[in-house]
Amino acid sequence: MEKALIIAAGKGERIKCISKEKPKPLIKLLGLTLIERVILSLKEAGISEVFIVVGYKKEKIVEFFGDGRRYGLRINYIENDEFQRGNGISLLKAKNYLKEKFLLLMSDHIFDEEAIKRVSNFELGDFEIGIVVDRNYPNFIDLGDATKVLVKDGMVVDIGKKIENYNGIDCGIFIVRDTAFKYFEEALSKGEDTLSGMMKEIAIRNKLKAIDFEGKFWIDIDTEKELKTAKKLLLKNLFKETDGPISRYINRPISTKITELLVNLPISPNLMTVISFIISILSSILFLKGNKFYFLIAGIIAQFSSIVDGCDGEIARLKFKKTDFGAWLDSVLDRYSDFFLILGITIGYSIYKGEFSISTFLIGYFAMFGSFMNSYTAVRLDQIIEKKGIKGIRFGRDIRIFLIMIGSILNKLKLLLLILAIITNFISVKRIFFLKKEI
Amino acid sequence: MEKALIIAAGKGERIKCISKEKPKPLIKLLGLTLIERVILSLKEAGISEVFIVVGYKKEKIVEFFGDGRRYGLRINYIENDEFQRGNGISLLKAKNYLKEKFLLLMSDHIFDEEAIKRVSNFELGDFEIGIVVDRNYPNFIDLGDATKVLVKDGMVVDIGKKIENYNGIDCGIFIVRDTAFKYFEEALSKGEDTLSGMMKEIAIRNKLKAIDFEGKFWIDIDTEKELKTAKKLLLKNLFKETDGPISRYINRPISTKITELLVNLPISPNLMTVISFIISILSSILFLKGNKFYFLIAGIIAQFSSIVDGCDGEIARLKFKKTDFGAWLDSVLDRYSDFFLILGITIGYSIYKGEFSISTFLIGYFAMFGSFMNSYTAVRLDQIIEKKGIKGIRFGRDIRIFLIMIGSILNKLKLLLLILAIITNFISVKRIFFLKKEI
Repeated sequence: MEKALIIAAGKGERIKCISKEKPKPLIKLLGLTLIERVILSLKEAGISEVFIVVGYKKEKIVEFFGDGRRYGLRINYIENDEFQRGNGISLLKAKNYLKEKFLLLMSDHIFDEEAIKRVSNFELGDFEIGIVVDRNYPNFIDLGDATKVLVKDGMVVDIGKKIENYNGIDCGIFIVRDTAFKYFEEALSKGEDTLSGMMKEIAIRNKLKAIDFEGKFWIDIDTEKELKTAKKLLLKNLFKETDGPISRYINRPISTKITELLVNLPISPNLMTVISFIISILSSILFLKGNKFYFLIAGIIAQFSSIVDGCDGEIARLKFKKTDFGAWLDSVLDRYSDFFLILGITIGYSIYKGEFSISTFLIGYFAMFGSFMNSYTAVRLDQIIEKKGIKGIRFGRDIRIFLIMIGSILNKLKLLLLILAIITNFISVKRIFFLKKEI
Repeated sequence: MEKALIIAAGKGERIKCISKEKPKPLIKLLGLTLIERVILSLKEAGISEVFIVVGYKKEKIVEFFGDGRRYGLRINYIENDEFQRGNGISLLKAKNYLKEKFLLLMSDHIFDEEAIKRVSNFELGDFEIGIVVDRNYPNFIDLGDATKVLVKDGMVVDIGKKIENYNGIDCGIFIVRDTAFKYFEEALSKGEDTLSGMMKEIAIRNKLKAIDFEGKFWIDIDTEKELKTAKKLLLKNLFKETDGPISRYINRPISTKITELLVNLPISPNLMTVISFIISILSSILFLKGNKFYFLIAGIIAQFSSIVDGCDGEIARLKFKKTDFGAWLDSVLDRYSDFFLILGITIGYSIYKGEFSISTFLIGYFAMFGSFMNSYTAVRLDQIIEKKGIKGIRFGRDIRIFLIMIGSILNKLKLLLLILAIITNFISVKRIFFLKKEI
């Protein structure tokens, strides 16, 4: 599919207090307006041309997006001055613009971007229309306001806000064909001006195919409460399956809070990567001071840099700015950070002790190498974890830096290096044998 | 395509002296028989069922391959007792077995395995037969004996051993359809019993599509001289685009010689990886002896391990035993080798000098880290090199180990560490900026 239609004409009255100046689609949520998220999800799913049905405060939307060049796709506008009527009218206004199969989305629905990719690859039968249905709808859904559907044998047989008998919720994502417009018009002639009323016309003909929602979350934002829930869902979605325990329970909860603050500023993910690197280097330098107090400060700063290190990827994901180079740079600078940290600890401890003992240096060598091999073997390990969903504690940088903080606070740097040297090398060798079976 | 036909019925008289006991397809070449190479290439191209037309000493071939389970595909045999006649007869014998589109190959043609993958994905028009044609035939081709073709507008318009006017050579790889058998029979009724005679029948009807040979090499093995050439071509094909200069001009020429000897023994690629690792560890231990003579020996052994390190991949490629784990293990053990080598040099030098100076240890740290970052950044660099075919000197492990040998022979270990520390780190940082543009 190459084209998509977004309905953005409505007034969004239930969320008026925060949208007095601008229409609901332009409400900002974690660095992007609601409709920007929809458009960028479509872009990632390979859509090259988007039609937006505008109505209420349409000039603001047109002004905001222009021809879409900034987003790497073409954006066209379809006017709907009857936006006070049901949202089905908006769909009908698109009749003369879309002469093929297209995706239909709402400007105020938020979902994880993977969901759209899957839907756009869904194969429909002849003359079928697809409707994405959530069969395991979560508890934050306002069931009173949601459009319910009854699915039988993969087809939607009934749809509406007020149906009694239902087993799924309409997620507001559709695959529509131009051949269906005549049925939508038929619905209108019967007095049905809502989208669900028009879809019912298709359901009656047994051509409304249910597509299971397989994304991580979706939400229809009608109220401020739902806007807050959407924010929570987007932030929760930043937790990664490959996060280690320290990352999951300490770093991510804090880094997502920082990201929440930073995401509205014009800070690029790569800049965040460099900032986190600089903080880590600062920690390394403080270790060189060679005394207890600075060790403590350096350890805390190291842990702080490890937390901030999560923000680059989080900002990138929230703002659809993930790049191959960004991910690569992050991992390369992490290796430099690790190197300078362990070097700093080794030298700092020697200064503290007033002697350069060979044992300290040797242990430092092994700790550094083990840390490196940990990351080197993690690339393959993470591929396996993501593919097979293997659970268990992943020993990674999050734990290493956390140990550095603990060791620094306790002023047990040599013991720290020894523990790092042993654990990291043990884990790396263990992974070789583990991956021999798994690859 | 799922099926392939291999013609292996002929007597191969011109190479008799070395095939007295066995038919030509069973002649061994670098660890595999000629026909095994064809079968394993087909396997890699996704073919699941192979038909072999057998004739001369057929029982030996059947005994050798059985049902093909050992190779991960199904092998069936078609008997052709008229193998003294032209090879077109072998093709006709397959008529009742192949009711679809299939690949047709000769059992005595060797080519790089990528070629078959490309051919099997080639899209033909209705009723077309595909013939792989080499338009830039190399000088080792026996033009007197080769089947020549004349290509016009992508179609073969004439084919035969004795045509005067030609612009390509038939490589012995075809895509055939069952619908063509009636034309082959027509050719036979005209007295044509060779494959090229039968293909001419298709060419006359303007349905013989020329598929450009896009592999690295192919050769038809009819004589002992050609067998030797095939060996050379297979070994030359082991040189990799990402090989650094030391690898290309010193290590590969030697390692391929070693591989040539080892490939007939039951040594697995992973065992070779471990052997090379052990040799490298031996070198590290010798450095610890802390005297000039042992440094020299250790340096030479390190370089030797670097040479042997090429054999695992070479054996794997020659015997179709490449695995993801093998490639991964090789790179992981290389990191361990690097670590122990630089550690050995650092400690060995300190023992030699009789003092543990902090500068030696620091330089060692940086040399080790730089070596590591070299390999860490090389993964991405090599992807770019392979994709874009970028030329230039690739600073990698081959050069690092070579420098270690030179430094050890000259007994300049501290200078060596310093040079490694500077060059490796400089190169790694440079790559970050290079890859920023390229990724």
